[in-house]
Amino acid sequence: MHQDRPRYVIDRPAYNLPDFDKDFDKKSRQFPVGEKVKKLFRCRINHTVNMSYTSQTTSDKLCDQIVHSPRGYDSIQSRAELFKEFFLFVSVRCSASRLKGLLFRHLPVLSWLPKYKVKENLLCDVISGVSAGTIQVPQGMAFALLASLPAVNGLYSSFFPLIPYFFMGTAHQMVPGTFAVLSIMVGMVCLRLAPEKDFIYFNATSNQTEMHEDLMNEVRLGISGTLACLTAIIQIGLGFMQFGFIAIYLSESFVRGFMTAAGLQILISVLKYIFGINVPPYSGPLAVIYTLVDIISGLPDTNIASLVFALVSAVALFVVKELSARYRHKLPFPIPIEIIVVVVATAISGPLHLPELYHMDKVGEISLGFPKPILPTVSQWEDMLSTAFSLAIVGYVINLAMGRTLAAKHGYDVDPNQEMLALGCSNFLGSFFKIHVICCALSVTLAVDNAGGTSQFASLCVMLVVMVTMLALGAYLNDLPKSVLGALIAVNLKNTLLQLSDPYYLWKKSKLDCCVWVVSFLATFFLSLPYGVAVGVGFSILVVIFKTQFRNGSAMDQIVATDIYKNPKVYSKVKSVTGVKIVNYCSPLYFANAEIFRQRVIKKTGLDPGKLILARRKFLEKEQKGKAKEEKEDKKTRRRKPSSLVTMKAQTISQLELQNDFDMNDGSANKPEPPTSYVNDIELGEQAPDQEPPSPSAVTLESQPMPFHTLILDLAGVCFIDLMGIKVLTKMNSSYSTLGIKLYLANVQAQVYEELEAGGAFDDGSIARGNLFLSVHDAVLFAQQTAGERRVSLKAEKAKQDLGFNIKEDLELVRTSSPIQTYIK
Amino acid sequence: MHQDRPRYVIDRPAYNLPDFDKDFDKKSRQFPVGEKVKKLFRCRINHTVNMSYTSQTTSDKLCDQIVHSPRGYDSIQSRAELFKEFFLFVSVRCSASRLKGLLFRHLPVLSWLPKYKVKENLLCDVISGVSAGTIQVPQGMAFALLASLPAVNGLYSSFFPLIPYFFMGTAHQMVPGTFAVLSIMVGMVCLRLAPEKDFIYFNATSNQTEMHEDLMNEVRLGISGTLACLTAIIQIGLGFMQFGFIAIYLSESFVRGFMTAAGLQILISVLKYIFGINVPPYSGPLAVIYTLVDIISGLPDTNIASLVFALVSAVALFVVKELSARYRHKLPFPIPIEIIVVVVATAISGPLHLPELYHMDKVGEISLGFPKPILPTVSQWEDMLSTAFSLAIVGYVINLAMGRTLAAKHGYDVDPNQEMLALGCSNFLGSFFKIHVICCALSVTLAVDNAGGTSQFASLCVMLVVMVTMLALGAYLNDLPKSVLGALIAVNLKNTLLQLSDPYYLWKKSKLDCCVWVVSFLATFFLSLPYGVAVGVGFSILVVIFKTQFRNGSAMDQIVATDIYKNPKVYSKVKSVTGVKIVNYCSPLYFANAEIFRQRVIKKTGLDPGKLILARRKFLEKEQKGKAKEEKEDKKTRRRKPSSLVTMKAQTISQLELQNDFDMNDGSANKPEPPTSYVNDIELGEQAPDQEPPSPSAVTLESQPMPFHTLILDLAGVCFIDLMGIKVLTKMNSSYSTLGIKLYLANVQAQVYEELEAGGAFDDGSIARGNLFLSVHDAVLFAQQTAGERRVSLKAEKAKQDLGFNIKEDLELVRTSSPIQTYIK
Repeated sequence: MHQDRPRYVIDRPAYNLPDFDKDFDKKSRQFPVGEKVKKLFRCRINHTVNMSYTSQTTSDKLCDQIVHSPRGYDSIQSRAELFKEFFLFVSVRCSASRLKGLLFRHLPVLSWLPKYKVKENLLCDVISGVSAGTIQVPQGMAFALLASLPAVNGLYSSFFPLIPYFFMGTAHQMVPGTFAVLSIMVGMVCLRLAPEKDFIYFNATSNQTEMHEDLMNEVRLGISGTLACLTAIIQIGLGFMQFGFIAIYLSESFVRGFMTAAGLQILISVLKYIFGINVPPYSGPLAVIYTLVDIISGLPDTNIASLVFALVSAVALFVVKELSARYRHKLPFPIPIEIIVVVVATAISGPLHLPELYHMDKVGEISLGFPKPILPTVSQWEDMLSTAFSLAIVGYVINLAMGRTLAAKHGYDVDPNQEMLALGCSNFLGSFFKIHVICCALSVTLAVDNAGGTSQFASLCVMLVVMVTMLALGAYLNDLPKSVLGALIAVNLKNTLLQLSDPYYLWKKSKLDCCVWVVSFLATFFLSLPYGVAVGVGFSILVVIFKTQFRNGSAMDQIVATDIYKNPKVYSKVKSVTGVKIVNYCSPLYFANAEIFRQRVIKKTGLDPGKLILARRKFLEKEQKGKAKEEKEDKKTRRRKPSSLVTMKAQTISQLELQNDFDMNDGSANKPEPPTSYVNDIELGEQAPDQEPPSPSAVTLESQPMPFHTLILDLAGVCFIDLMGIKVLTKMNSSYSTLGIKLYLANVQAQVYEELEAGGAFDDGSIARGNLFLSVHDAVLFAQQTAGERRVSLKAEKAKQDLGFNIKEDLELVRTSSPIQTYIK
Repeated sequence: MHQDRPRYVIDRPAYNLPDFDKDFDKKSRQFPVGEKVKKLFRCRINHTVNMSYTSQTTSDKLCDQIVHSPRGYDSIQSRAELFKEFFLFVSVRCSASRLKGLLFRHLPVLSWLPKYKVKENLLCDVISGVSAGTIQVPQGMAFALLASLPAVNGLYSSFFPLIPYFFMGTAHQMVPGTFAVLSIMVGMVCLRLAPEKDFIYFNATSNQTEMHEDLMNEVRLGISGTLACLTAIIQIGLGFMQFGFIAIYLSESFVRGFMTAAGLQILISVLKYIFGINVPPYSGPLAVIYTLVDIISGLPDTNIASLVFALVSAVALFVVKELSARYRHKLPFPIPIEIIVVVVATAISGPLHLPELYHMDKVGEISLGFPKPILPTVSQWEDMLSTAFSLAIVGYVINLAMGRTLAAKHGYDVDPNQEMLALGCSNFLGSFFKIHVICCALSVTLAVDNAGGTSQFASLCVMLVVMVTMLALGAYLNDLPKSVLGALIAVNLKNTLLQLSDPYYLWKKSKLDCCVWVVSFLATFFLSLPYGVAVGVGFSILVVIFKTQFRNGSAMDQIVATDIYKNPKVYSKVKSVTGVKIVNYCSPLYFANAEIFRQRVIKKTGLDPGKLILARRKFLEKEQKGKAKEEKEDKKTRRRKPSSLVTMKAQTISQLELQNDFDMNDGSANKPEPPTSYVNDIELGEQAPDQEPPSPSAVTLESQPMPFHTLILDLAGVCFIDLMGIKVLTKMNSSYSTLGIKLYLANVQAQVYEELEAGGAFDDGSIARGNLFLSVHDAVLFAQQTAGERRVSLKAEKAKQDLGFNIKEDLELVRTSSPIQTYIK
């Protein structure tokens, strides 16, 4: 590619961190927590204003960059805007007009309505809104069936929530409305709290068991409203607490797995409408299996008329949808095939009295007019809390995802917290009018967007269409067979069910993501949806923890003639630096993997300092015992031994005396914790200051040959560290230095450095700041230099200590007994 | 420090990753999942054998390194050992003798008993065991009170579990036994399932309400045994499933917060014994508060005799413990002050009939002899599942922590899974003999260790002491006041309660760790212990997620005359590389922070590519409209405009035509998702291949000035990446390249590279492998070179396109309008 590569030529001093900081004048940056918190709150209050402010300036800047012709942009208007925004920005700082800022933030309509260009956009909005409205009506009715509610509930749900969203929504093209997954979750609660069997009574007149269907519907509408109210309160609460970020904890793999399972559940639950079978409702874990079994065993009783209606509608819907998707660019607005199918089906079934003739389930009477407002039954909230929480989160996530897609397409910003609030308020208002929980009406929103809708005026038109149906046209839909609505739902599920192939692609790309998908899918499908949310979210967070534990550290060697260090198992042209071991580790270092990290370093270096120290001590004890015995024998026999043996012993003993000192120290460091620490030995501040640094005399021990004299840990991939991680590092540092091995840390990230500092890693007796290096190569250069220096000074010291006695033999011994003779380079 | 720093001198070609891999011969390493899994299982089966094998060889190697004198180590014995181990190691591979390996693994007694050196160690073990037994007895009885059980249960709990542990335990000095925190958790279950009020009856004879105390004790013993059995089953299950690693999810901050809260709860619950007040038992959340209120309101009824007994015992215990801790080294074994206090107190209270005189609560009759075995009441398991789980985990963690401390001190290995099994079996056997759940008896274990115990023979002696009490001496403890046992518990809590100062130290060291402590403490204290475990563990895992979100990316500039790039806000002697922006990010890149990462890059570079592209398109649309209008006007007026304006327009249009092409492409890329993706636009494999790479013609757009031509992301701190992270990276890559900005990735970790590769980041049209560099400096060198080349080729192209027309003006325009004129270096 680049045959003439640039040369990498550097000639600079090697740096450790303190030197570097001094040479290049490091500034100390202090962010006290108080300041941070204050800043955070200030940011939040000014959030929207700032946001629109910055986005304005950014776009201005961008325009400046682009506009070369004077006609390009109405710059005077833009200046005026900018000035207005700036004024706003300043005024918010005065607490008097903070209210205004809050008002503009929470009612975005105040921002966009005055700027609305009637001439340009109104026509588009009306056309797109009306055509989308014709989708909203049948879809709402169909999803009401999913929620085990009368069809009219779907109309309410498609109408009332749109009012608050008009004022509060930040996504311009968004139309709130029913969403199948939410509907089926609502349906489960309705079935659980108001099961059919509660409304069966024995009619003495007809001598049959009959059902108070009206009463049941009324009760279920109440439950639905109550649930919507609770969901709304949760959403509003989360919105005010600025918990909009909660959406990011739902990983995409989880969401897709969850949605696919929900889609399958929906499909199974509409089968009974399509086949016209009566199936007792189930709820709770494994409900879907029981339902499926009942449907299969009920297949012989299929209502052929229902099935025919369903199949014909499904085919019509499918074909037209496919075609209009293909020729989308040529159509001015999408064909409202849903409403056409519904109208045609009603027109056939009604006048011919087909439902009565063939015992088909029909939609039934749709009570015209606005519903009477009701109050939520607060006492039921306890039973629906977990479902409400799932509904609140899932609805919000769907809404936000759609909003972000729209925003990215049209270049505006969506405020997550404000969206949460808007959704909450929509549900809240609706809850008094017997709606079931809504979020974004997916296909309606897409229809609006494709037909060129630009603002919430489009959803105003959707509202109008729904209102007309609710007040007048609804009566004519009386005879619509439920199986047609079932077919409508089933066809809409096409894309969801295509996701069943996700695991195949995911497996190739990332095994763990695939696991998240599968776990979410299985938990949702078999355990029910709210459980699915809990299990899926929990698992996807656990996977993050797993990932930090599966990281491999690797030993690293120098790539010949470069300053690059790589795993020798991967690259072949490497040479190891004598006397230096380099290990890298690519994971945060915290409670869940600190011990794993230590083990890995031991494995990669082949040396366990703890065991080595113990082995030494044991050896010395034996030595001492042996000595004592011998002395006894000496006294007994008074025989002279050959001088060479005496020399050897004398030498051992002189080392022994030094080591005794060290042993005392080390013994106290290793003594069992005071009973406080059931935890694997913790030291906190002054509480347990008994882990002393090795005494200086221990240093002389290093004349015993070690396989390496410096261990360099490449911490580039360690992106954060907690107290456990710091403890492990300092412990390693002290045990290695006891053995005379230097522990160097290279490539420490700036934030990790701060954490190390705060966590006391550089306190007295712990890691010396001078042992931190800018890069592995810097560390290696220092290690090589220091090793040379040390060797020389050691020799001198030794010479002094032994008064020139036996040095040669000693060195000779070291050289022959250890395979690493060359570490004095 | 090092005044003569080594020089860092390098002269090598700059590398991008593909070149580097080619030059240095990268080997491809494939680990198919099947292989990995197989390896894992093989490892697990041979785990212990391998472990002892490697530890043996390691220590051998170490000895070789150390032993210079021939007397140093009994090398012949070691060779024999080694051979035996090797034989074992080989034999396990044959499936016939796998059983033997499993036997050795699960019954460590087979390994240590044959090697036991009777002469050296037996005396020590007996002395330490007997003295520790005198602690075990009163402590067991005291903790039985905490568990709301009769004192004799404490003796059972201190005896039966020791039998399986003798055979199965891997920690040599460990003595299993009662642990206060577990006892109080058991007590809560006992109170909940067998509350006192169930055993109150109206005695017609005495005309008073009385209590079937014997019956209640019997029922509670049954509950305790049932709970122990369930806990044991959970532990054995986890042990067999190799879930020993579960302990690492309990971060130290959590454990300390939890333990401190438990300690406070224990203190509050023994106050009633100390003051001799009758307090109704509570359980569930806030129980501790109700208890505290009752105790305070009951203080006027304090039983002075109880209080005096308690205070005197407490002072005696405290003083002697402090003194013996101070003079530990001078004492052959710890003073058994617990048993002394108990004996003295009994000796005073019994003969003088003090309990009857002063209405003091006394221990009451201790039924001598072994208990009759009972069967667990399986039907109660449902009610105690969550507590059993907490008990299983907490008990295991305490046990393992102590075991590891001992192992580190004495240089042997503790097998976590085997410990889990051993603990489970201990509880399992005990559960048939009415014990309550046990783990490691902390102070007893420490006593054994301090007195020089070396093996499980010590705990055999502890068992003997307990048995003697159970069979004979127990009868004499009848008159022991409960307040003495209360004082014993309270004094033992000293160290736990000292931990209340933890947050003070933690806050200074790490704010988040402090939060974990506080949350764990509060949840445990106020909500009850099992809730505390759930909340604490959940929160400490969430904190890990938070940490990855609080990471700051930072812009980086070159430190003058080096290859080092640092944050210019921190270092002052920096110079920015013209035309190149460098941003680093120090966190894994995954679903919870991928979007945060993108925003941060936008913030640090000051350029939002998405918005810029949109702004461009809008500008072009306006331009086109304006053009159309003008053309109309042109046609109407047929007037000639001055030639300069025509030129300018012609030039704009020629760019326009190019951009139209790009716009079409881009338009299709930005079109709303098909209804599948409620999720923020996902592309999976072949499912949605519509995000095409920008067409080649788009490249020419870059002649419009950008603030920089290359963006380098330093990914050293990115330690893993998931599919969401990859998607964000590829999206950024495509949008930047649309704008003509090159996206270079530097310092990509090896494992992250593999993840990128598997996740399809290098597929056609995504990130080019050539844009990955070994270091930031390599990337900068390439960027500078390429920028120069590109500029030249662009000039040539431009020249060809415009046929030499207006180039100079064009370039002039670029130079004057943009602040970055110098990016051709």
